[in-house]
Amino acid sequence: MDHLILHEDPASGNCFKIRLTAALVGLPLERRAYDIMQGETRTPQFLSAINANGRIPVLQIGHRLLPESNAACWYLAEGSPLIPDDRFARADVLRWMFFEQYNHEPNVATLRFWFDFVGADKLDAARRAAIPGKRAAGEAALALMDEHLSRQRWLVGEGISLADICLYPYTCTAAGGGFDLALYPAVGAWLDRVAATPGALPWPER
Amino acid sequence: MDHLILHEDPASGNCFKIRLTAALVGLPLERRAYDIMQGETRTPQFLSAINANGRIPVLQIGHRLLPESNAACWYLAEGSPLIPDDRFARADVLRWMFFEQYNHEPNVATLRFWFDFVGADKLDAARRAAIPGKRAAGEAALALMDEHLSRQRWLVGEGISLADICLYPYTCTAAGGGFDLALYPAVGAWLDRVAATPGALPWPER
Repeated sequence: MDHLILHEDPASGNCFKIRLTAALVGLPLERRAYDIMQGETRTPQFLSAINANGRIPVLQIGHRLLPESNAACWYLAEGSPLIPDDRFARADVLRWMFFEQYNHEPNVATLRFWFDFVGADKLDAARRAAIPGKRAAGEAALALMDEHLSRQRWLVGEGISLADICLYPYTCTAAGGGFDLALYPAVGAWLDRVAATPGALPWPER
Repeated sequence: MDHLILHEDPASGNCFKIRLTAALVGLPLERRAYDIMQGETRTPQFLSAINANGRIPVLQIGHRLLPESNAACWYLAEGSPLIPDDRFARADVLRWMFFEQYNHEPNVATLRFWFDFVGADKLDAARRAAIPGKRAAGEAALALMDEHLSRQRWLVGEGISLADICLYPYTCTAAGGGFDLALYPAVGAWLDRVAATPGALPWPER
């Protein structure tokens, strides 16, 4: 495989997914850090050379650039047990990965970002108005996961898959957004299982 | 393949993606309609029997249920030219599909839903406060597509792929959310190419 470079912010759960995937499939990643709080992914150079969308992570594969955390995880995990052989199970893994980006990350991760990184006292009126909706939607996402994980140990099938990896980091740090993980005991037990997977990396780093 | 049933709202672009994919790969779909404006996807029966997340579309494959529009498209398109053989191109298709669910749909489609379905005069304060942010983010998503499509005819590779299919419906109806597609000429030409694809279905239906 071509040389792999992860353009990342080490504090970002979206970036951690890619490092966890690479670790579990045994692929070495070179890491290049950008501080999103300093606007380092919005510079003209970053926008023209790395990602016109102004976001990390971007996985660089040789000279080619792949934005979107979950797409990068898919690239790295193809051919490994993290993506099931069965056609339905494979689509079901993607189902949880799209759930993560639509129902979970914009609520659970965004509130953590606002409270832990931006600061509650620095939120503008539009963000403050959005908090109750994001709180309810994040709680609904965690409750849906909890109900599912009360019936099975992993999100899809009998072992860890990309579905678990992609939902892990921002569930792990949900307390930073004001979510009480004690309300979701099956989620808590699942977090422990992901963390105990042989080869898994510690999260969060800081 | 098992019998396929699409649980859908015919006015939903997320549902249309699945019908367009099925049409292009030649798979017959039985359609079951629910009216989201009447809460038909939030009934106890729907939540327990079809999707605990209370959303359409859900693709039913025999007795198994697959939520998330883009995951359902992936299931139907596997083995077809809509998913490239090349590993990077395949991940790049997913990159655009995740972009669609994260950067495009929550802005471009949501404003269309608020204005065309809920009604501007019925939006609560939180939704009204969110409009400027969604307007800017939707315009940024369309501008990013336009820049990309000014350099190539299709989002990935030399022909239509799931990336084009998944970004097509809500781009097509963006005017309903107050977006001016005349500002994005490369997007307009691409919409025409998708619509002219042999076997494509008309959109929107109503």
